[in-house]
Amino acid sequence: MPIHVPGVRLGVAQAGIKNPGKDDLVLIELAPQSAVAGVFTQNAFCAAPVQVARTHLQQTGGAIRYWLINTGNANAGTGDQGVQAAQRSCVDLARCVDTSEQAVMPFSTGVIGEPLPIDMLSGSLPEAVEDLNEYGWERAASAILTTDTLPKLASRQVEIGGRVVTLSGMTKGAGMICPNMATMLGYVATDAVIAAPLLQALIQSAVDASFNRITIDGDTSTNDAVVIGATGVSGVVITEEEPDQFLVFDTALKDLCLELAQAIVRDGEGATKFVEIQVSGGGTCAECDQVAYTIAHSPLVKTALFASDPNWGRILAAIGRADLDGLDVNGVTVSINGVLIADRGSRAASYTEEQGVAAMAPADLMLQIDLGRGEASSVVWTTDFSYDYVKINAEYRT
Amino acid sequence: MPIHVPGVRLGVAQAGIKNPGKDDLVLIELAPQSAVAGVFTQNAFCAAPVQVARTHLQQTGGAIRYWLINTGNANAGTGDQGVQAAQRSCVDLARCVDTSEQAVMPFSTGVIGEPLPIDMLSGSLPEAVEDLNEYGWERAASAILTTDTLPKLASRQVEIGGRVVTLSGMTKGAGMICPNMATMLGYVATDAVIAAPLLQALIQSAVDASFNRITIDGDTSTNDAVVIGATGVSGVVITEEEPDQFLVFDTALKDLCLELAQAIVRDGEGATKFVEIQVSGGGTCAECDQVAYTIAHSPLVKTALFASDPNWGRILAAIGRADLDGLDVNGVTVSINGVLIADRGSRAASYTEEQGVAAMAPADLMLQIDLGRGEASSVVWTTDFSYDYVKINAEYRT
Repeated sequence: MPIHVPGVRLGVAQAGIKNPGKDDLVLIELAPQSAVAGVFTQNAFCAAPVQVARTHLQQTGGAIRYWLINTGNANAGTGDQGVQAAQRSCVDLARCVDTSEQAVMPFSTGVIGEPLPIDMLSGSLPEAVEDLNEYGWERAASAILTTDTLPKLASRQVEIGGRVVTLSGMTKGAGMICPNMATMLGYVATDAVIAAPLLQALIQSAVDASFNRITIDGDTSTNDAVVIGATGVSGVVITEEEPDQFLVFDTALKDLCLELAQAIVRDGEGATKFVEIQVSGGGTCAECDQVAYTIAHSPLVKTALFASDPNWGRILAAIGRADLDGLDVNGVTVSINGVLIADRGSRAASYTEEQGVAAMAPADLMLQIDLGRGEASSVVWTTDFSYDYVKINAEYRT
Repeated sequence: MPIHVPGVRLGVAQAGIKNPGKDDLVLIELAPQSAVAGVFTQNAFCAAPVQVARTHLQQTGGAIRYWLINTGNANAGTGDQGVQAAQRSCVDLARCVDTSEQAVMPFSTGVIGEPLPIDMLSGSLPEAVEDLNEYGWERAASAILTTDTLPKLASRQVEIGGRVVTLSGMTKGAGMICPNMATMLGYVATDAVIAAPLLQALIQSAVDASFNRITIDGDTSTNDAVVIGATGVSGVVITEEEPDQFLVFDTALKDLCLELAQAIVRDGEGATKFVEIQVSGGGTCAECDQVAYTIAHSPLVKTALFASDPNWGRILAAIGRADLDGLDVNGVTVSINGVLIADRGSRAASYTEEQGVAAMAPADLMLQIDLGRGEASSVVWTTDFSYDYVKINAEYRT
């Protein structure tokens, strides 16, 4: 059950963009004086709403009042017409709620390449405004879903300077997930007082340690965005001049983002496994990442995970093609859920197939790779590749 | 029907490594004075036979007499013990046929990480030697298969200086296919006279334009190898001093390798589509390759290909995440089988969904991407991702 955040109201409407009778429009209102920050997709084909949202955030210096989100249509690959539609949604909302169009950030998710039905969207704005309430988190979190099977919400409360600060967030995404800066739609709100530049630094570092370390299929979305709003209603001020309080907030925010990011992986398209890949003993973090992502994206590893097959040869093959300069394979060890499988580049003397089968059986797996050539490490979360992954993505538009 | 190559004999045996009663051992004999060259996997976990084959090729300067191939076991991820087993197979064959162990190149394909049953292999060497004959190409091409469904053979005959020169080759591979230097097992033979250094240059450039431009799953194998043997029996000498004759041979060899490489794609695990991806208008060939491979490896594109769904948004999204510096998406066009789908970064004005559905229907597809920022181009061949891909790879070891 998410905890409401003082200063934040959410409203939902049925615009008919997705399917008739389905919630597909979400409006999130932040109290006046709120500060907002965000990170966006690095995909060169970034969607029209991402372009407009980024511009409005810059133009206002973070003084954003509304996040407007539609599902059913990504408004991506739609050219100038798409940008105009995204802008018009901001203008129309601004007129409804008596604010400036720059105080609105638009977000879209759904099919790429279809024109956004802007008249349907704008026509249902009054319904969303009418519905605004502090307790709308759960309905909103369900309304932003596409191929997701479950809403993804998380909350934290921390005590700072004797007062309680709340953080709540919601996210969506189950496919086209390999965020590079942010993942397709995450919304976090807090009632702390935080200046926009510091809020930007906080959300960037939290996203780097959470949303930017998950991958389902290696396909970075055109619409990725994670935003945070600080309403300030609690009166608790977070600044770097108070390092103890800063650390409490920073830790709570990172923790919240990690819970939301891992919820995306657990709800990955067709996923039957939740897999943590830890790579240690690297010369640099970058080379640990190279190994972790090569394993996480290997279709042969992912299908073996689906089959609960301890086919560690495929893991070795993926490590071997990760393009590390001068990798000595005789220094590499691999463990699955604590069972040592490969030692110094070949099968561990102690290993038996029975151990491997038992280690692979759980739905939660931890692969640990030690490269044996340094002190750096990294971690990535991913899923397996199942029949359902193919089914979901072969039938997505039909 | 493959054309036999004077100076080449092939023999097959049943060593019991794969399944009882299955051909799983192939011996290829090259006439004395033959020259041999080859290219091998760049995977850091390269298999024991690759290490031994490469060493013997270097030690003899290309004076190789035998290629010894087993299926059912890749002898990869097997450490020092694996290298010793590969060496022993060469020693045992050398004793049977009265040659040096350095004149033998071993090759293995099959499961990674299991010890090679060397006694079974060596015990069946006399059977393979006994079977050596000039017309053994077809049976040998079937005996080297693993998850392949069809043997893959090709031949060319060209007239050079009034005499006929023959080239024949066979290959195998249907998964773990993203060659980087060579693909898992290709064997080419000719009766031309070609010195080993020139033969190495010829096979390297032919492989770069064929086997190194195909991908099924992005997983570079541990055992990739393509080798060529020139028996010289025709008496026709190929040198760079005779550029016209050199060109005829070079063209025939490239053509042969391309036919074999494309046969691997057509027989890709679970493949229902054969897809040529042409990228043009790039600043460099390397950036065209980046775009082509990002599309070829995208699970979302591959599942849409399987569904014959003209979901061109996924193609745009893949182009957008291919990490090209300063890509102007408004310069990008995309066609499928000649139908212009995306123009200047969004849906072409002329495009209809009916055209897209018709364009995607055939089993052979050509995706053409113009990046609109230069003169460079590249081409890559790949397949779709089907239920059967998951099935084959989830059940591989069971």
